[in-house]
Amino acid sequence: MRTITKDTITDVFMGYFGPDTDPRLREIMQSLAHHLHAFVRETGLTHAEWEKGIEFLEWAGRISGPERHEFVLLSDVLGVSSLVDMVNSRPEGTSSSVLGPFHISGAPAIAYGSDLKRHYDGPVLLAEGTVRRSDGTPIAGATINVWQTAPNGLYASQDPEQDTYSFHGIQTTGADGRYAFTTVKPVSYTVPTDGPVGEILNATGRHPWRPSHLHYIVKADGYRSLVTEVFPDDDPYLDEDTVFGVRDDLVMTYTEHPADTFPDGFELSGKVTEPYLRVDFDLVLTPE
Amino acid sequence: MRTITKDTITDVFMGYFGPDTDPRLREIMQSLAHHLHAFVRETGLTHAEWEKGIEFLEWAGRISGPERHEFVLLSDVLGVSSLVDMVNSRPEGTSSSVLGPFHISGAPAIAYGSDLKRHYDGPVLLAEGTVRRSDGTPIAGATINVWQTAPNGLYASQDPEQDTYSFHGIQTTGADGRYAFTTVKPVSYTVPTDGPVGEILNATGRHPWRPSHLHYIVKADGYRSLVTEVFPDDDPYLDEDTVFGVRDDLVMTYTEHPADTFPDGFELSGKVTEPYLRVDFDLVLTPE
Repeated sequence: MRTITKDTITDVFMGYFGPDTDPRLREIMQSLAHHLHAFVRETGLTHAEWEKGIEFLEWAGRISGPERHEFVLLSDVLGVSSLVDMVNSRPEGTSSSVLGPFHISGAPAIAYGSDLKRHYDGPVLLAEGTVRRSDGTPIAGATINVWQTAPNGLYASQDPEQDTYSFHGIQTTGADGRYAFTTVKPVSYTVPTDGPVGEILNATGRHPWRPSHLHYIVKADGYRSLVTEVFPDDDPYLDEDTVFGVRDDLVMTYTEHPADTFPDGFELSGKVTEPYLRVDFDLVLTPE
Repeated sequence: MRTITKDTITDVFMGYFGPDTDPRLREIMQSLAHHLHAFVRETGLTHAEWEKGIEFLEWAGRISGPERHEFVLLSDVLGVSSLVDMVNSRPEGTSSSVLGPFHISGAPAIAYGSDLKRHYDGPVLLAEGTVRRSDGTPIAGATINVWQTAPNGLYASQDPEQDTYSFHGIQTTGADGRYAFTTVKPVSYTVPTDGPVGEILNATGRHPWRPSHLHYIVKADGYRSLVTEVFPDDDPYLDEDTVFGVRDDLVMTYTEHPADTFPDGFELSGKVTEPYLRVDFDLVLTPE
């Protein structure tokens, strides 16, 4: 339209849509255009600022690949990922929390009681719980995909010193819905600051720290998939997670136990010589 | 914050900012976060839709490079680029219009009267005008960076058959502020549809056509830079430009003239044997 103005452009944009456009896609694109246009009008965005934004997106594109997902990190630090988690969480289920930019596919299956810690230094953490419904019914055959950083704060995909799937595994629940594995206690770490997202954090005076956590993706037939994390209640960054991932129901006490109380039936049974930590974290799924 | 909710996340986001944050950056980030968060809440964006969005951005990143700027094209088809043009246009100057994703740097200098058409088929177009202030004062020493597609609808950067700077040139005005060059009459063309932006156009039932145009970037000391285009008034896509670039004051009549009226002082003088077209397009700059 030759007569397009800054006040009519959103309507003109919607007027371009064909009659067969999927209604949900139309709804999403209308809301997106409405808000992007309002952002430009509100800020009076200059060409130089627009160019900076384009360069930013191109930089994020260049730095991304199978093992680095800068757009996910951008969504995370802007609070968008956490907001998606919040609007999709069901009050009767475990809260969702950010997937993060370092999830990789293809992790190996691990049996109940397996160890992910291997030769790494640090306290043994025994993580266990039940995959269940909100009424307590255990869910059998659920897959629990867990991953975390090594004690150096790096995920396997970031760290050439680690094996491809170091600190990654997928466990399947039996009839009792239980899962359990040992690992090293996760550490607080910084999100990567050597890319465009780091530039945003730096320019806005934000720190890049995340409180320590284990990542989980839980799937079971007939249930909504759950992407979440568990945090220890003594982490100093709980109230200032740079990606807004902490929820009250995801903060757990990691209790310390003497070495000689370590249970049987674990890969590390009989091999634990120092006090170890336990966290009991149930994963409550909601029907699809 | 552990107590963060979907209604407080925007405030928490702003609360993370350091005291030394540049006030303009703070304003832009606050507006951006406010609108992105509202978009997620309004649409109840699902994780699957969020993932689709991330994949879309990563695809745009992979396909981008020095000669293809998919994020610019995305901004263009969403109307964002044109809105930036509109909020920054001064009523007393020539309207801005989209830069487009195919601008390349380093075009060669061309003298007044130079020809860009060379051996290409199609009508000769003599484009000329004055770079001036709104009161008519000519602006000397202004640089006019022009570019367009070849008759096949492709820019040099898209087309291995063309030289690097085919249909590109930079002319500098003399004391009278005049510019003039010959070229082939531009054609209507489609924006690239083989990437993620093409997927959006297809999914929303939109055509990828742009009305034919010449691109201009005009710069002069003491004046705001002008990025604009000129369109012929007989183009069938004037009222449905897929990137929203048309403005009333950028639509011009391309008048036809007999070959024997072609003026002296041009590279093509004495070589024009068919009727040719002329467009007189003044470029009105506003002080910085």
